[in-house]
Amino acid sequence: MKSNYFDNSATTEPCDYAIEAMLDAAKNFGNPSSLHSMGISAENILKSSRKILAQSLKVEDKCFYFTSCGTESNNTAIIGTAYRKKSIGTHIITTKIEHPSVLNAFKFLESQGWSATYLDTDKNGRVDLDMLKRSLTSKTVLVSMAHVNNEIGTVQPIEEVGNIIKQSNPRCHFHVDCVQSYMKIPIDLKKANVSLASFSAHKIHGFKGCGALYVQPGVNIDNIIYGGGQERGMRSGTENVAGIAAFGAAIRWNNEEISKKGIGYLGSLHDMLYDAFEECDNITLMCERNVCAPHICSISARNTRGEVLLHTLEKEGFFVSTGSACSSHKRNISHVLQATGTPRDVAEGVIRISLSYSNTPEEVRALIEAVKNAVRELEQYIQK
Amino acid sequence: MKSNYFDNSATTEPCDYAIEAMLDAAKNFGNPSSLHSMGISAENILKSSRKILAQSLKVEDKCFYFTSCGTESNNTAIIGTAYRKKSIGTHIITTKIEHPSVLNAFKFLESQGWSATYLDTDKNGRVDLDMLKRSLTSKTVLVSMAHVNNEIGTVQPIEEVGNIIKQSNPRCHFHVDCVQSYMKIPIDLKKANVSLASFSAHKIHGFKGCGALYVQPGVNIDNIIYGGGQERGMRSGTENVAGIAAFGAAIRWNNEEISKKGIGYLGSLHDMLYDAFEECDNITLMCERNVCAPHICSISARNTRGEVLLHTLEKEGFFVSTGSACSSHKRNISHVLQATGTPRDVAEGVIRISLSYSNTPEEVRALIEAVKNAVRELEQYIQK
Repeated sequence: MKSNYFDNSATTEPCDYAIEAMLDAAKNFGNPSSLHSMGISAENILKSSRKILAQSLKVEDKCFYFTSCGTESNNTAIIGTAYRKKSIGTHIITTKIEHPSVLNAFKFLESQGWSATYLDTDKNGRVDLDMLKRSLTSKTVLVSMAHVNNEIGTVQPIEEVGNIIKQSNPRCHFHVDCVQSYMKIPIDLKKANVSLASFSAHKIHGFKGCGALYVQPGVNIDNIIYGGGQERGMRSGTENVAGIAAFGAAIRWNNEEISKKGIGYLGSLHDMLYDAFEECDNITLMCERNVCAPHICSISARNTRGEVLLHTLEKEGFFVSTGSACSSHKRNISHVLQATGTPRDVAEGVIRISLSYSNTPEEVRALIEAVKNAVRELEQYIQK
Repeated sequence: MKSNYFDNSATTEPCDYAIEAMLDAAKNFGNPSSLHSMGISAENILKSSRKILAQSLKVEDKCFYFTSCGTESNNTAIIGTAYRKKSIGTHIITTKIEHPSVLNAFKFLESQGWSATYLDTDKNGRVDLDMLKRSLTSKTVLVSMAHVNNEIGTVQPIEEVGNIIKQSNPRCHFHVDCVQSYMKIPIDLKKANVSLASFSAHKIHGFKGCGALYVQPGVNIDNIIYGGGQERGMRSGTENVAGIAAFGAAIRWNNEEISKKGIGYLGSLHDMLYDAFEECDNITLMCERNVCAPHICSISARNTRGEVLLHTLEKEGFFVSTGSACSSHKRNISHVLQATGTPRDVAEGVIRISLSYSNTPEEVRALIEAVKNAVRELEQYIQK
C-alpha cells in the first residue's frame, strides 16, 4: 500500500482483498433482483457481505441495509426517523461538532418545521451530558451523534448517552455515526442501546460509493430513496454489488490485520505521535489523549497555517489533511474547533494525521521528524 | 464477455475499459475533497468522466452531477424540483408506465401534499399527448417520463413532449429518464427542451452504484442528500471515484463499439428477433417494432408463464428477464402491461430480451431457436 499516507480518515487505499472482490463481482455481474442464476449469485454476494458486517458487530444480518455512503446512511437515519415519527414529536437533538451530513440533515428538517437542539461540548469535543438530560423531552424523537469525531478524534461516551436516552424517553431513537470508529475502537451497539448506526466502506480500505445502515430490530424508519424496493424497501436502486463485495472483503482484511498486529496497534502508533507532540511547545494537540480515538491526531502548529504545513509535508512525501476532507475546500474555521472554543489563530494552524493498520512505526517516526522540522522552519520563516 | 446474456436492460457486464479504470482509481485513491495532490488526482478522474459524458450528449460538462444510481437521479430530479418549486405550484405529471423510482417518488410527493397526474398510454406504451396538453396548467412544475420504457421498449416522442410543455408552461421542468435509452438511441437534450435527465453506468457496461443527473443551465432544483456539499452541492457524500472512472471508460467502450459495428447494429439484431417472432402465432410482441427501442424485445408466449420460459431458456444457457429486474420478485402483473391494456393471461407469459453491443447475430439466432423450441414444448406439456 502507499507509504507515508496519513489521511486515512478522509479515505483509505482499497486493500487487495477489496480489489479481488471487486473483480470477482465484475464477473458475477448479474442484477440481484434478476430471477435467473446470475441474479442469485449476485444476491449471494450481498448476503455474504451482510453476514461479515453483522458478525463484526455481533448483531443479526437482517439489521443491515447497504447504502451508497456514510452520508446517505446518516441522512436516512435522521430524515427517516423524523418523517416516521412526525406525529409523535418533532424535536431532534445532535451536537455542535457533527459531520456536515448530520448537521445539514438537521438544518433541512428545521426548514421543514422540526425543532433542533445542538448540544455543547467541552474543549476536547466531549458532549455535555447535563445539557442532553435537560434537552430530552417526551417529544424528542431522535438523538444523533458520532462515536468518533472526524476532525479531532473525540470518542463520545455512547453507552452513557444511550442510557440517558433510555431512562428519559425509551421511544426516542439513538443514532450513532460509526463511520470513523468502525474497525478502530470497540462498538457495542446493544449495550449502548443504539437504534441506528452508520458505516462506510472507504474508510476501512473498501471502495468509495458504499455504506451501510444498522437498524435495531423493532425500530422503524421511513426510507428516503424511492423505487424498486431493494434492500427490503429501505434503499431502492440496483445494489452496488461490487462495492458491497469489496466492503465485506475489507472487513476481513481489517480483522486479519488486527489479529496479526494486535488490538493495541493503532494506539501504539498514536502514543508515538502524542509522546512526540506533547513535548513540543510550538505544537498544540486538539484533543487530549485519554478521550481521543487511536487513529486521529489533530495538531496545530504555532504561527503556521494548516494548509501551508500540509503542502510542506507533501513535498517530503507525507499526506495529511487540514480538518476534514469534506470541509477542506472551505476557508472558514471548522465548526468543530469553534465549538471546542479553539482560538482562531490556533484553529488556522490545524492539520489532521489519521492512521490505519497499513501505517508502520517507521513511517510514524519519519512523519514526526518531518512535522517537527516543518513547523520549526515555517516558524523561522515567519519570524524573519 | 459472457455469451448468451440477454438481460442487458437489467444490468450489463463491466467492460474491460471499466475494469481497468476501476483498478486505476484504486491506486489513485485520494478523496477528491483533499487538498493534497492525491485529492487533486482523484478530482481529475471525476472531471475526465464528466467531460466524456458531456461530450457524448453534446452539452457542457458543468451540466452533470454524479449520483449513486439511476434511481437516485430520478428521485433528485423529481423531489428536488417539487421542493424547489413548492411556492409556484404543486402539480406534477408523469405516465402510468414509469419505472418505480419515478412512480414511487411521485407517491411520496402525493403523501406530502402534491397532486399528481398519471398519463395514459396506448397499447404500445406511447404516452397520450392530448391528455398531456389537457393536464398542463400554470401550476404544473414537472413532467417526468422515460425516453425508453424499461419493460417493453417503447420510445416516447420526447421532442414533441418537450415542445408541448414549452408552449403550455415554459417554466415547467421536463425530466427525462434516459437510463434505458443512453447509448442505444440518439438523445438530443437541447432539441427536446429537457431540463433534467437521468443516466446509469451499469446499463452501459460500467459498474452498479454510479449514475448521473443532467441539469440544464438555468434550471434550479433542491438537493435531496445533505452533507459536505460535494458535486457543487447537488450530491453530498464522498464521490464514488472508481465507479465514476469506470462510467467514463464504459462510455468510451460504447462509442468504440458503435463506430466498429455501426449505428444500426442493435437495430439489425432487433429486426432478427422481430422478424422471427412476428411470424409465430404462439408468440405476441408487447410493443410494435416502429415505436420500440432497438435493444428491447418483450414477448409473451401463449399458455406459458414467463418465469417458466425464463428457467427453460436458462437451462439452455440463455439469460433473459420476466418484465424488469427490479419488479421481477413481485408476483403481480406489471403496471406497464396493465396500462397498455394487456390481458392477464398474455401479461403472465411475458419475457424481456434485452440486447447490448456485446451480443452477436449468432447468439441472437441461437436464442430465437431456443425460444421457439421452448414455447412449443411448454405449450405441448400444458396441453397434455
